[in-house]
Amino acid sequence: MPNPRVQSMLEKAQAARRNRARLLISCPDQPGIIASVSQFLYSQGANIVQSDQHSTNPDSGLFFMRIEFALPDLQERADALRDGFAEVADRFRMDWRLEFASVPKRIAIFVSKEDHCLLELLWQWQAGDLFADLVMVVSNHPDARAVVEPYGVPFYWIPVTPESKPEAERRQRELLRGQVDLVVLARYMQILSPDFVQEWRHRIINIHHSFLPAFIGKNPYARAHARGVKLIGATAHYVTEELDEGPIIEQDVLRVDHRDEVEDLKRVGRTVERNVLARAVKWHLEDRILIHENKTVVFA
Amino acid sequence: MPNPRVQSMLEKAQAARRNRARLLISCPDQPGIIASVSQFLYSQGANIVQSDQHSTNPDSGLFFMRIEFALPDLQERADALRDGFAEVADRFRMDWRLEFASVPKRIAIFVSKEDHCLLELLWQWQAGDLFADLVMVVSNHPDARAVVEPYGVPFYWIPVTPESKPEAERRQRELLRGQVDLVVLARYMQILSPDFVQEWRHRIINIHHSFLPAFIGKNPYARAHARGVKLIGATAHYVTEELDEGPIIEQDVLRVDHRDEVEDLKRVGRTVERNVLARAVKWHLEDRILIHENKTVVFA
Amino acid sequence: MPNPRVQSMLEKAQAARRNRARLLISCPDQPGIIASVSQFLYSQGANIVQSDQHSTNPDSGLFFMRIEFALPDLQERADALRDGFAEVADRFRMDWRLEFASVPKRIAIFVSKEDHCLLELLWQWQAGDLFADLVMVVSNHPDARAVVEPYGVPFYWIPVTPESKPEAERRQRELLRGQVDLVVLARYMQILSPDFVQEWRHRIINIHHSFLPAFIGKNPYARAHARGVKLIGATAHYVTEELDEGPIIEQDVLRVDHRDEVEDLKRVGRTVERNVLARAVKWHLEDRILIHENKTVVFA
Amino acid sequence: MPNPRVQSMLEKAQAARRNRARLLISCPDQPGIIASVSQFLYSQGANIVQSDQHSTNPDSGLFFMRIEFALPDLQERADALRDGFAEVADRFRMDWRLEFASVPKRIAIFVSKEDHCLLELLWQWQAGDLFADLVMVVSNHPDARAVVEPYGVPFYWIPVTPESKPEAERRQRELLRGQVDLVVLARYMQILSPDFVQEWRHRIINIHHSFLPAFIGKNPYARAHARGVKLIGATAHYVTEELDEGPIIEQDVLRVDHRDEVEDLKRVGRTVERNVLARAVKWHLEDRILIHENKTVVFA
Repeated sequence: MPNPRVQSMLEKAQAARRNRARLLISCPDQPGIIASVSQFLYSQGANIVQSDQHSTNPDSGLFFMRIEFALPDLQERADALRDGFAEVADRFRMDWRLEFASVPKRIAIFVSKEDHCLLELLWQWQAGDLFADLVMVVSNHPDARAVVEPYGVPFYWIPVTPESKPEAERRQRELLRGQVDLVVLARYMQILSPDFVQEWRHRIINIHHSFLPAFIGKNPYARAHARGVKLIGATAHYVTEELDEGPIIEQDVLRVDHRDEVEDLKRVGRTVERNVLARAVKWHLEDRILIHENKTVVFA
Repeated sequence: MPNPRVQSMLEKAQAARRNRARLLISCPDQPGIIASVSQFLYSQGANIVQSDQHSTNPDSGLFFMRIEFALPDLQERADALRDGFAEVADRFRMDWRLEFASVPKRIAIFVSKEDHCLLELLWQWQAGDLFADLVMVVSNHPDARAVVEPYGVPFYWIPVTPESKPEAERRQRELLRGQVDLVVLARYMQILSPDFVQEWRHRIINIHHSFLPAFIGKNPYARAHARGVKLIGATAHYVTEELDEGPIIEQDVLRVDHRDEVEDLKRVGRTVERNVLARAVKWHLEDRILIHENKTVVFA
Repeated sequence: MPNPRVQSMLEKAQAARRNRARLLISCPDQPGIIASVSQFLYSQGANIVQSDQHSTNPDSGLFFMRIEFALPDLQERADALRDGFAEVADRFRMDWRLEFASVPKRIAIFVSKEDHCLLELLWQWQAGDLFADLVMVVSNHPDARAVVEPYGVPFYWIPVTPESKPEAERRQRELLRGQVDLVVLARYMQILSPDFVQEWRHRIINIHHSFLPAFIGKNPYARAHARGVKLIGATAHYVTEELDEGPIIEQDVLRVDHRDEVEDLKRVGRTVERNVLARAVKWHLEDRILIHENKTVVFA
Repeated sequence: MPNPRVQSMLEKAQAARRNRARLLISCPDQPGIIASVSQFLYSQGANIVQSDQHSTNPDSGLFFMRIEFALPDLQERADALRDGFAEVADRFRMDWRLEFASVPKRIAIFVSKEDHCLLELLWQWQAGDLFADLVMVVSNHPDARAVVEPYGVPFYWIPVTPESKPEAERRQRELLRGQVDLVVLARYMQILSPDFVQEWRHRIINIHHSFLPAFIGKNPYARAHARGVKLIGATAHYVTEELDEGPIIEQDVLRVDHRDEVEDLKRVGRTVERNVLARAVKWHLEDRILIHENKTVVFA
């Protein structure tokens, strides 16, 4: 249980979101989709609060849509709503889901030693800026326990060595299964196994430093410094089998100059990483991200 | 006639926009608007390319919508489309208009001595970034003639003194009437009469420097310098009877520091002004701005 | 005493700054200042690590300088250094001070109910990004106690009513006197008396929301929303007798749009406020700010 | 000869810079450099207007310095100044040069078909924001002639085919030799031969698109689009033998999103390229850039 202050903030946020839902749709583009979806919602008595669409190409492309609507007695009518919409969805061969805005997504944060991303997420969460159920923090080091537990969030220290890794992952996945909707890798420095990634496909968000040009491999900050880059960036993305090649959710950069030593670049890197990761997580929690192929559509 | 290079760019842009139209709507919010509008467009065979909505409040607020759609033989079917939509519009008490994307808006640029905003608009226009018919440049000084005429744009030098002002305005308004859709005040340092503003209400865009805090009155840059501000801003807005109090379209700032003299602040101010004005004009040309009360909704 | 984790971070930071000092100078500009100062430091065996200068006007203006240097056995030689430099200083009629980089400034944070600025400062402090001795947090409300005390920082709840204000200020000033170098008003919503401000002149930093245009008086966010502003800003400044008119240290803005309700503007305002205040405090702690008249020179 | 308007602006700028010079220094760091340099300038009667230093490491690193100073009768005393300073320079084993602020650097702009960078440079130059002698524009295509010649700037069309390339380069280098101080590659799409680059080492500035992650090779914009990047960047750098691997002068990014097609990414890329290149050129013209190894020190 979160501490009482956070708990009361979450309850207030939940109440404010009552009777709000989001419909997320992707399908082949064709005329009539918006008409049919909005007609259906109207017939149900729903009031569209926000609607965003995107088409990769009106002729033969893909269509994406996010509709947030208000509907009295939403919970009671959820089944009927789903059944009714299934017919519309069938007609347009839609991938779709219905999300209740008042149900906080359950998240697990994975962290290693560097805690700047963890702290930012904790802070935004306890300030009510991230509406989520923070179910657990998992780390391969014990260090973060002290900052996590005062918030009433369970902390699991699961050390990882080359030998213990399979067992550690087994335990991690056991902890997550059925308890969590999203895993956030907040500078978790272990590579997840392909099995893990597959099970949690598009439900793991990672944060990664980024440079212009790229410095792939060891010691990127030292090499960025040697090259005299003027910008330090970060990329938040969903994790796929190809490691850092999953769909990009958000990117940003901050400025550095010749006076910045390697340590300064790292400090700037921490700032841009925590900002970018927090934005990406927030958008995921608010169902603002749709994925197709290896790209995201973010209705920010 | 624009010079041949610009002319050919405009023609290409026009061809790319053929059969595209934008429907702009404001009305009291109520359930069923999106459903009805999208159903109507579907029934006409139109394909929605982009759709943006905003509601100030789903219960008793105002609803704003911009739909861009593609429809074969658009020009031929325009009258039928308008007639048909009028019924939908009546039902929801809509303010609405239909704009053809391929018809460039006709703009007049007013300028005094400082030509940075004029030049930015000219450059973006000749580069094809502003799709418009640049009908004339009007100035109370002769200086800008040399940069305007090589583009094949008519330049009118209409001096303004306290005595000649009424006559000058009469001539300006005569030039504009029926020839122009939008007047851009690109650092035009004369105050337009209330009559002029009324006639061109919400069709004049002005650019104005902005500071934190505000420095109202004379010598704002000198006073901003004396106060040691760290940001220099600009605001683009529609002109209303209350001078610089009209609906804000866009704002931005740039950074300055203690090394910047008054002249540097002015230089930075010019840069932020030209960027902000060009964005505001672009959004207007693309029918992305809706006005209500003293605010804008910008579907950027 | 800070908790052990923070304590160890502070000690490491201190060690890294050993034998580092900063010389801060303002005086009438004239030829030879840099030559004399650098010659003096050289004669003492000091090595200049960073040097920044600014002149408002080489002819008859003011000259500002910040030199950071390394000198073996700095502490032992401090008195001799000061005595020696006094001669140089006399010659050029300098205002000057010598600051030891390894001596953390002692700060007190004042806060009311909104804790976003307090939290940012706490976080940056415990992360080692703000090198300071956080001596106390003072509030007119008890709410912040829970976030402050886990860090081992004393928290003083001093309620303020119109009647109790003189007594409350008396107690606050008693707490501060001799214990604190800088007071940070981190959304402290009580106006300090002129006496208080005078005693702590240029040693109180305040954070203030800022808008383009300005909305002076009550409910600025509601009025900014009604006006449809596109930017929300914040200004950090030293407190002087004229309230929010003291020397500006830093300003920044963030973008908002028509979808943002008053509550969203406030949320954005909190983000820009915490960032701007933290930067201003950091620069003060690192002796990067010189004040003259009502302006700052920031050698960032 | 530039057209009269530009010519008069240049002459005014020149007058404002009279008696101003810049001393650029790099040498092994050791105590006493600043003292000696500033002492020397003082002894000459010079008044330091701006001074920037940087040391990679006070112990065994490199020291960089840029001093801008005012000295009456500068031109007449230039030789004495140089002779005198040579002694100081010898003592510290300095690389150094003395630049007169009133002598505009002579630049040649190379361009291919895309003219956005050329236009930005022309505009800033004619507005007085780039103080330079624009000696010529060289292109392998005839297209840019129309925008260049109205400014009174000679335009050379030198077509380049695989066969004609050696001869074309020979002609280009002949045009440049003795006439030009800086070559700006403003989207010049031909690779210069190693000989050319060697002759003009650190005197050629190039602009290059940049992405996070990098897309090396063909069709970078299409690949950036396929990958769904959220930022489009540009890097301005000096050209060295390793093509795009020379010292970075400036970088920046702009934001894109899922609605941006490949063409939009290119348009955004053009904007960021022209801004970044213009800043880099401006800093070079003002002698704000020092190079060591493969990095720049930019005293911006």
